[in-house]
Amino acid sequence: MVPRGRTLSRPAGVGGAADDYLCDSWRLSVETNNAGPFRSFPTTCIPYVKKYFSGDWYFSDSEVVAGDSLYFAASVPIEGDGKDIWIFDVDETLLSNIPYYAAHGYGSETFNETSFDEWVELGKAPALPASLKLYGQLLELGFQMILLTGRGESQRNVTEKNLLSVGYSSWERLILRQSDDHGKKAVVYKSERRAALEAEGFRIHGNSGDQWSDLLGWATSTRSFKLPNPMYYIP
Amino acid sequence: MVPRGRTLSRPAGVGGAADDYLCDSWRLSVETNNAGPFRSFPTTCIPYVKKYFSGDWYFSDSEVVAGDSLYFAASVPIEGDGKDIWIFDVDETLLSNIPYYAAHGYGSETFNETSFDEWVELGKAPALPASLKLYGQLLELGFQMILLTGRGESQRNVTEKNLLSVGYSSWERLILRQSDDHGKKAVVYKSERRAALEAEGFRIHGNSGDQWSDLLGWATSTRSFKLPNPMYYIP
Repeated sequence: MVPRGRTLSRPAGVGGAADDYLCDSWRLSVETNNAGPFRSFPTTCIPYVKKYFSGDWYFSDSEVVAGDSLYFAASVPIEGDGKDIWIFDVDETLLSNIPYYAAHGYGSETFNETSFDEWVELGKAPALPASLKLYGQLLELGFQMILLTGRGESQRNVTEKNLLSVGYSSWERLILRQSDDHGKKAVVYKSERRAALEAEGFRIHGNSGDQWSDLLGWATSTRSFKLPNPMYYIP
Repeated sequence: MVPRGRTLSRPAGVGGAADDYLCDSWRLSVETNNAGPFRSFPTTCIPYVKKYFSGDWYFSDSEVVAGDSLYFAASVPIEGDGKDIWIFDVDETLLSNIPYYAAHGYGSETFNETSFDEWVELGKAPALPASLKLYGQLLELGFQMILLTGRGESQRNVTEKNLLSVGYSSWERLILRQSDDHGKKAVVYKSERRAALEAEGFRIHGNSGDQWSDLLGWATSTRSFKLPNPMYYIP
């Protein structure tokens, strides 16, 4: 007789311990986009997320993504006509708002746009080290850099100053939301801008962002790279 | 004067510890598809992967993916015309080959097709518990189940027997590679089959697989769900 209901066995003695992994499993679910839209992470995982950002874990994850990106970038033939581009998102990609979020429950608090905009206006966001290094390496390889952010046109000056102050320079364009982009989902706004870039003849080889809405949609890059961000979701 | 080169600070005292996270960061890179094609994982990470599969970690990750899937599935309006489908991959999705891989270095050894096929012919692969539960819940919700596997037509009988023996039943179709699919990339073979299903009028709401080649390509599902698999990559 064929046994029914045979399943992969949990090792003896560890049954019931699955909750120990809940926050880790939840983070994987977010980073793979399995979770889909989420408003905030489980409050029981606040200490986990704090630990994630307070030690070397986040840096390590970011460095491995940058390594993946460079490995691919080095294989791209650069035509030399200035049309080979790499797209970077800004927040939690080139710049880090961890100093802000650390003071606001690492995203577990309801997002306060006024308060966050005040932080942005300070222009004090540090660079994410792995991205800063990658950015320089991509420039050396001959890529043109396109910065495509959900920040609004009114934040152009402070964003440029912030980027320059932490070591980013030589971008081809910094694209921000215009007034008629208000209310558009990020995935639509960013896809439209990428499509416009392609229509100009740019070849979008790589795209780096911490949100799936940076990477999905249409006019997508040859390869896209998801930077870690377990804190928040932008549709 | 604006400080140059300011970056997000590593907390004092933890500098240089990034290697502690290397295997974890590498796994995230694989699961997000940042890594792209990889042949085998770093040999230094063999103990990490063994730990991943030997305790509750893998079960927890799988259960959270199943939870994400069910949450979405419950929101899908079922038309009642038998055309609302959910696609499942087989290996490392419905069935688990962990007993085989545990005896072969968890994927760190070069893949031996003959040896693996002998394992498949035994028809002894256990069910992945989270998938078995999800499968039943999706049937209850009214989805038709399509099983789409990279296994060949010659393995139909043993695959059916194996699936039935561990508790899966009532699938609408089990689709296996035919002779003219030989040499096709999985992402092409699976996209072609999904497109054919759409041409028949099926609505592909969900798609569950452990490989990105199960989920990407064309004729993609409304939502796709990446099951964990740090062991191997199928293009």
